[in-house]
Amino acid sequence: MASQNVQDFTQGNETYASGFNDGDLKGPPSRKLAIVTCMDARMHPEKILGLKNGEAHMIRNAGGRYDTDARRSLVISQRMLGTREIVVIHHTSCGMATFVNQDLCEVVEKDLGKDARTHADKLDWLPFKDLEQSVKDDVQAIKIDPLIQDVPVHGYIYDIKSGKLQHVC
Amino acid sequence: MASQNVQDFTQGNETYASGFNDGDLKGPPSRKLAIVTCMDARMHPEKILGLKNGEAHMIRNAGGRYDTDARRSLVISQRMLGTREIVVIHHTSCGMATFVNQDLCEVVEKDLGKDARTHADKLDWLPFKDLEQSVKDDVQAIKIDPLIQDVPVHGYIYDIKSGKLQHVC
Repeated sequence: MASQNVQDFTQGNETYASGFNDGDLKGPPSRKLAIVTCMDARMHPEKILGLKNGEAHMIRNAGGRYDTDARRSLVISQRMLGTREIVVIHHTSCGMATFVNQDLCEVVEKDLGKDARTHADKLDWLPFKDLEQSVKDDVQAIKIDPLIQDVPVHGYIYDIKSGKLQHVC
Repeated sequence: MASQNVQDFTQGNETYASGFNDGDLKGPPSRKLAIVTCMDARMHPEKILGLKNGEAHMIRNAGGRYDTDARRSLVISQRMLGTREIVVIHHTSCGMATFVNQDLCEVVEKDLGKDARTHADKLDWLPFKDLEQSVKDDVQAIKIDPLIQDVPVHGYIYDIKSGKLQHVC
C-alpha cells in the first residue's frame, strides 16, 4: 500500500503530465543561470523568481551553502552545460541558524545511537549564525574558486514572511 | 547596470511577492517528506509533483546523487526538521550520463587552465551511465546509511519528454 505522500504526488504528477508541453526543451539552461539556495519547503525558487521550465539550474541543500557538492554541481553547470551567471539565495527563519554542530550530533546519538554519533562527529553540518554574512561568505567562496572564475555572482536573502527578495552583494 | 537575468527575476519576484500569502508556514515540512533530485533546469520538482509551499524539502544537485552534501542535508532534514520519508528522482536526458570524469577535467583545463585541472582531478564528479541503476544505487545508499535508518525511501525516474514520473524501486 503506497503511502499518502506517494499517492498524492503520483496523482499530482498525472495532472501535471496531462497538461505538459515542454518536452522539447534542451538541457543547457536558456538563461545561462545557476542558482544555489536552501532546501527549505517554504521556498519554491522558480516561482519566487518567476522562472520558466528550462531557464536555470537549481542547486539546493541545507542552508544553500557552497560546499563540496554545490561546487561539484556548479562546475558541471558552468563547464558542461554553459551557465555563466550565479545567484546565491539564503533566507530568513532558516533552520541552519538554530543549531550548532554539537546540537545535531546529540540528536543523532539520541535518535540513532552511539555508532551514528561517531559518523556525525566527523562532519561539518555548515550551520550559521549571521544570515547576511553567510550569503557574503558563500558568494566570496564562489568568486575565489579556481574552478569557477570570471562570472558574475550575486547574493540575496529571501524573506519567508513577505515573499520578497533582498539584494545583499 | 543589472544583468538581464537580475532585472527579470527581480521583476518576477515583485509579482510573486505582491500575491504572496504563505508567510505563516512553519519550517518543518508538513508532509514530513524530503526529495533528492537533479538541478536540471527542465525540472521544477514542486510543480511536477503537485506540491504546495511548505510541504517537502527539496535537495538538488548535478544528477540528484546521494553524496556527502545530500547526506548532510538529508540528515538535517530528518533529525532537526522532522522528515520521515525520502524520494530520489533522477531523469531522462540527464547531462550526467553524457561524460566521464576525465572529459570534465579536460574541459576544465581547456577553459580554466592547468591549475584548475589539478583541482578537478582530485574530485569525483559522479556521472553515471545507467539511469535506472543510478536511482537504485542512490536509494540503496540512503537505506544503508547509519545516519538515516528506518524510513521509507522511494526511487523514481522523471521523463523530460512526457512530464511523467515512473516508479523504479
